[in-house]
Amino acid sequence: MHFASDNTAPISPEILAAIEKASRDHAGSYGADALTEKLGTRARDIFGTELSIYPVGTGTAANALALATLVRPYGAVICAEEAHIATDECGAPEFFMGGAKVLTLPSVDGRILPMQIETAMARAVDGGIHHVLPEAVSITQATEWGTVYTPADIAELGAASRRRGLHLHMDGARFANALVQAGATPAELTWKSGVDVLSFGATKNGAMAAEAVIFFNPALAAGFERRRKRAGQLWSKMRFLSAQLLAYLENDLWLRNAAHANDMASALAGGLGSLPGVRLMQTVQANEVFVAMPDEMIEALLAGGAVFYRWIDMPGEPNPVVRLVTSFATRPEEVENFVSLARRLALANQEAA
Amino acid sequence: MHFASDNTAPISPEILAAIEKASRDHAGSYGADALTEKLGTRARDIFGTELSIYPVGTGTAANALALATLVRPYGAVICAEEAHIATDECGAPEFFMGGAKVLTLPSVDGRILPMQIETAMARAVDGGIHHVLPEAVSITQATEWGTVYTPADIAELGAASRRRGLHLHMDGARFANALVQAGATPAELTWKSGVDVLSFGATKNGAMAAEAVIFFNPALAAGFERRRKRAGQLWSKMRFLSAQLLAYLENDLWLRNAAHANDMASALAGGLGSLPGVRLMQTVQANEVFVAMPDEMIEALLAGGAVFYRWIDMPGEPNPVVRLVTSFATRPEEVENFVSLARRLALANQEAA
Amino acid sequence: MHFASDNTAPISPEILAAIEKASRDHAGSYGADALTEKLGTRARDIFGTELSIYPVGTGTAANALALATLVRPYGAVICAEEAHIATDECGAPEFFMGGAKVLTLPSVDGRILPMQIETAMARAVDGGIHHVLPEAVSITQATEWGTVYTPADIAELGAASRRRGLHLHMDGARFANALVQAGATPAELTWKSGVDVLSFGATKNGAMAAEAVIFFNPALAAGFERRRKRAGQLWSKMRFLSAQLLAYLENDLWLRNAAHANDMASALAGGLGSLPGVRLMQTVQANEVFVAMPDEMIEALLAGGAVFYRWIDMPGEPNPVVRLVTSFATRPEEVENFVSLARRLALANQEAA
Amino acid sequence: MHFASDNTAPISPEILAAIEKASRDHAGSYGADALTEKLGTRARDIFGTELSIYPVGTGTAANALALATLVRPYGAVICAEEAHIATDECGAPEFFMGGAKVLTLPSVDGRILPMQIETAMARAVDGGIHHVLPEAVSITQATEWGTVYTPADIAELGAASRRRGLHLHMDGARFANALVQAGATPAELTWKSGVDVLSFGATKNGAMAAEAVIFFNPALAAGFERRRKRAGQLWSKMRFLSAQLLAYLENDLWLRNAAHANDMASALAGGLGSLPGVRLMQTVQANEVFVAMPDEMIEALLAGGAVFYRWIDMPGEPNPVVRLVTSFATRPEEVENFVSLARRLALANQEAA
Repeated sequence: MHFASDNTAPISPEILAAIEKASRDHAGSYGADALTEKLGTRARDIFGTELSIYPVGTGTAANALALATLVRPYGAVICAEEAHIATDECGAPEFFMGGAKVLTLPSVDGRILPMQIETAMARAVDGGIHHVLPEAVSITQATEWGTVYTPADIAELGAASRRRGLHLHMDGARFANALVQAGATPAELTWKSGVDVLSFGATKNGAMAAEAVIFFNPALAAGFERRRKRAGQLWSKMRFLSAQLLAYLENDLWLRNAAHANDMASALAGGLGSLPGVRLMQTVQANEVFVAMPDEMIEALLAGGAVFYRWIDMPGEPNPVVRLVTSFATRPEEVENFVSLARRLALANQEAA
Repeated sequence: MHFASDNTAPISPEILAAIEKASRDHAGSYGADALTEKLGTRARDIFGTELSIYPVGTGTAANALALATLVRPYGAVICAEEAHIATDECGAPEFFMGGAKVLTLPSVDGRILPMQIETAMARAVDGGIHHVLPEAVSITQATEWGTVYTPADIAELGAASRRRGLHLHMDGARFANALVQAGATPAELTWKSGVDVLSFGATKNGAMAAEAVIFFNPALAAGFERRRKRAGQLWSKMRFLSAQLLAYLENDLWLRNAAHANDMASALAGGLGSLPGVRLMQTVQANEVFVAMPDEMIEALLAGGAVFYRWIDMPGEPNPVVRLVTSFATRPEEVENFVSLARRLALANQEAA
Repeated sequence: MHFASDNTAPISPEILAAIEKASRDHAGSYGADALTEKLGTRARDIFGTELSIYPVGTGTAANALALATLVRPYGAVICAEEAHIATDECGAPEFFMGGAKVLTLPSVDGRILPMQIETAMARAVDGGIHHVLPEAVSITQATEWGTVYTPADIAELGAASRRRGLHLHMDGARFANALVQAGATPAELTWKSGVDVLSFGATKNGAMAAEAVIFFNPALAAGFERRRKRAGQLWSKMRFLSAQLLAYLENDLWLRNAAHANDMASALAGGLGSLPGVRLMQTVQANEVFVAMPDEMIEALLAGGAVFYRWIDMPGEPNPVVRLVTSFATRPEEVENFVSLARRLALANQEAA
Repeated sequence: MHFASDNTAPISPEILAAIEKASRDHAGSYGADALTEKLGTRARDIFGTELSIYPVGTGTAANALALATLVRPYGAVICAEEAHIATDECGAPEFFMGGAKVLTLPSVDGRILPMQIETAMARAVDGGIHHVLPEAVSITQATEWGTVYTPADIAELGAASRRRGLHLHMDGARFANALVQAGATPAELTWKSGVDVLSFGATKNGAMAAEAVIFFNPALAAGFERRRKRAGQLWSKMRFLSAQLLAYLENDLWLRNAAHANDMASALAGGLGSLPGVRLMQTVQANEVFVAMPDEMIEALLAGGAVFYRWIDMPGEPNPVVRLVTSFATRPEEVENFVSLARRLALANQEAA
């Protein structure tokens, strides 16, 4: 019952096989190899547009490098207060942007609203040269609360950003999970809705360590290769990053993996949502379930072999909120066992009360 | 005939197998896994001392992160003018150190001398607060010219550094190649000779993408985990870095791979050194051979299927210098074919002259 | 009726005279002059302790340089959400700290509470290495709301900081105004209460351009001279900074100037506080008055020749809040004229209603 | 006999008077004042073109801020090895540029040649993305060796820079000294010859602390105000910077001061150049004289009350080289006394030999 994180999952077998295959002979280093070239072609097919794609090793690197291309050191990026770039990257964005600020907006379920961009910009402009000027908006898809922006949501944010001269960045650490949920094309969820740069995640959805920065506006990518190099993110044996990403995109592996993870999360939500004393905290739209439950129940589930994190205490909710994350590797019986154990505990609790 | 770089080689089969094995089940993320813990124990055994070891994805990251712990933004690091950190990392050290300087010293064969440290420090101190103050010395082992510092060389540099209050960093991208050449223990080549921090390379010698920063003075490692995180170098599925490094160190794989690469380089040097019109530029001590040869010969070798780089034009040498790099994957027949082709060309040249 | 800012005031005549006097002959550059040496002695007398004092040209430089010595690039500083370092320095702290974060705490009147430090630290520690770790607390004295921390307040913050291993920085852009209000000694308001580093302001209180960073713990000052140099804050003709600061401290000029400014603010507050339709927003303890008044009244005051800024709209307060700042140069008749004009307008408003 | 530096001189009386005059009343802060506006107009008149001018407090700040606008963090600036930005600013350029590199070129007398730019660029491009790419050239006018580029020299450097897509920066800490020597117009010495940005110095030539960054291509100035603010270089009482610069430019004060300083240096050179045992090291074109003389003579001059620095030991020159700097405040009798003392010592030396 592994629900701690999609990062605890193994490598998707297809991706492991691709690494092995890429290792059968010599190949050019630092990206001068056939797989890296093929990745570009494949990505252009999938997104249906001209683009530049740059593989890197981690999601934090993808985000921080992307933001550094959009925001000058005396600028800022606007995002939700829960955004990974604001809370979970130990200042990587500030480091890569050369000291620019990450300005956060309150959010109910991880999503921000176009109106908030307007307000934040008005305040910043009002501060004149004493205040950093935002140059980009960053949204997370799927969000840190496991919710998903629709193409229409993004298009509105894109329009609000453009009106204020802001670039739009998408942290797509769980892009595939959002994509299968949204029922949209990759293009609709990104550049057609105004996204300039995408941090395209694969690690959480089956890769070993492989993310990519995708520029839909190649002009923004000027100088990116040097940025990546000086960030220590240019792999000498680059083909092993490209091989992972190619296998990820081959035969819809990324979509199948994400759909499975989402289904497992839905099953968890379905099974837990109606239990007495248990409260679902959000509409489950991707592979994360946030659920409030009594302390004794949490302890008993952990004692019963489930692996997951207590997440947060929320105002107005008496019980702690835990986070359950599913992945491509989650087995249906893990979900069944967890739900059935939770049900037994909830009913026992109820009787005791 | 692959002599372009040790970076063009595949993954050592033992390391690939270790990745596969590590992928059989779930494991804690961000380093909270059994393999990462085991790596620490293994490294302490091999170096025979207490130490802190932190895996990262690239050699540039290892170097830049190591230097950032040793040098404050208003300081500097001293190194040879050919040093990778000075010329081939697109400013990564400056980026990670927050703007500190990389001060270079002239060098004949990639090695610097204790006396040069003294001179550089005297000059810096003379500049007072208008001049950056060096806080570290960085040496490359094996050097960029394929030469190797002996333990005695390093001990002298270590002593000169300590006298001036400088830390000593070793860029060990090819540490194993130097080790088997030096006939010394890992301890003798590092902390026993005054090295404070080692960039321990594995990628060039058989890994997919795996390096490590090793602190022999754990006090220096304070804060390193946050530094690594904010540099985007903390892999979420860290065990796949640790698995590579463990397999690398298991059953002397690292030593066997390096010894083979060095032998192949010696064979190249032996075969080429005595050819008419060809001149060996350095004492071959690791897995790189620098050799001057006529332009027509270079062209003919490339046309004959050999892969290698023209490296540099050297003062006093009429012919261009090419670099030949061997690796664990170099087959003896590649060397034989290359030497025999070179011999035919050299003799034909001689007759024509 | 100049109430826009204490920055719009001229130079105190005594300070101007000191600049003129320092210009009568040659003197050593970059701080190697008699005035700079004398400043150190004078500062040690006034604060009654060993200390290091470094003049710089602006308050933003003083704050940013001070914080950079206390916080490493992967750390953070905690402050009130209104803090100048958070909102009005265009990211200077982030720039000088090498990308470290400024974490803000909500505050009612510009002051933060010891408990808030505890909470912020708990949250940061909980985030582990994914979260920046605060290394300093910064408080503003007097605060951005014109309120003043008592020595007891500071001592509690100092103790809370030390418990958590945090340094305590004081932004004393209006330190003299706070000092005369607190009725304490400079020592009591700083190092005796746990302040490690003080940004000591003089510009707002009569200097032309002169601030100083004062370290009560000289060990923290290691390397500061190089930091200042590389920040472009080491004046070649340093004596003209030192001369300003010496004259400022001579014959209690700083205290007299501040007392006058505070008195003028009190007179404003006394005169405005009881007017119908006008509401004082804070206890006036220094040289700033925040007062809510109807839009028509603001317009009429501005039309009547008063110079001041609309500051903010506050929740629960129907009228806009304006800021009135007094200085050493404020003349009593300016205050009288302003109050009497305001009174006429308020009474007319009342009748109309 | 003050020849240590032009930084040891007092404030020009006209500039001191301007500060006093600017202090007679209140004025808008942060540059919203009449003097700052007037400075822009005056600068445009003098340079005969549209431009943006931004006063700052120090020359290091002017240079570092200028370079930060021209060079991205993954880029580099090319300059002579003696350049102030390379050796005497304690890494300020690297700090402000966000880690970009300062690449130095050898130089005989402080001047670089167009050909060197070409060579440096060829080498940089050859390194590909592993090497920082220069984005600017910086020249010092007058140079650190007291020599002066002619308009033709600059035009050639400007053309070589443009051919390679490089911006051209001029460190004009002693711009006025160069200008009166070159016998050219300010326009000819800058934008007409391809200079994009000028660090315009006044402190060494009579100001208290006042320099300016002048953009001849206003497009390059985008965002500069925020850069200056976050560098702690935006004076709140900005008018006192502008007042200095206006007085400096008024009634040709800058030219008169510089001409006097240059004349004093010529007199020194004329008097010293023919003395036995003394050797002039450069063609004196501005206000610095570099001269080699025996150790005993140096000691005797210092003992006789002269103030100056030993500068450097030069290859091929048996005696140490000292630097003598004159300024607007140098009195002819200081020069006469120095020369006559030197003559006595030289002749005595000669007899003794």
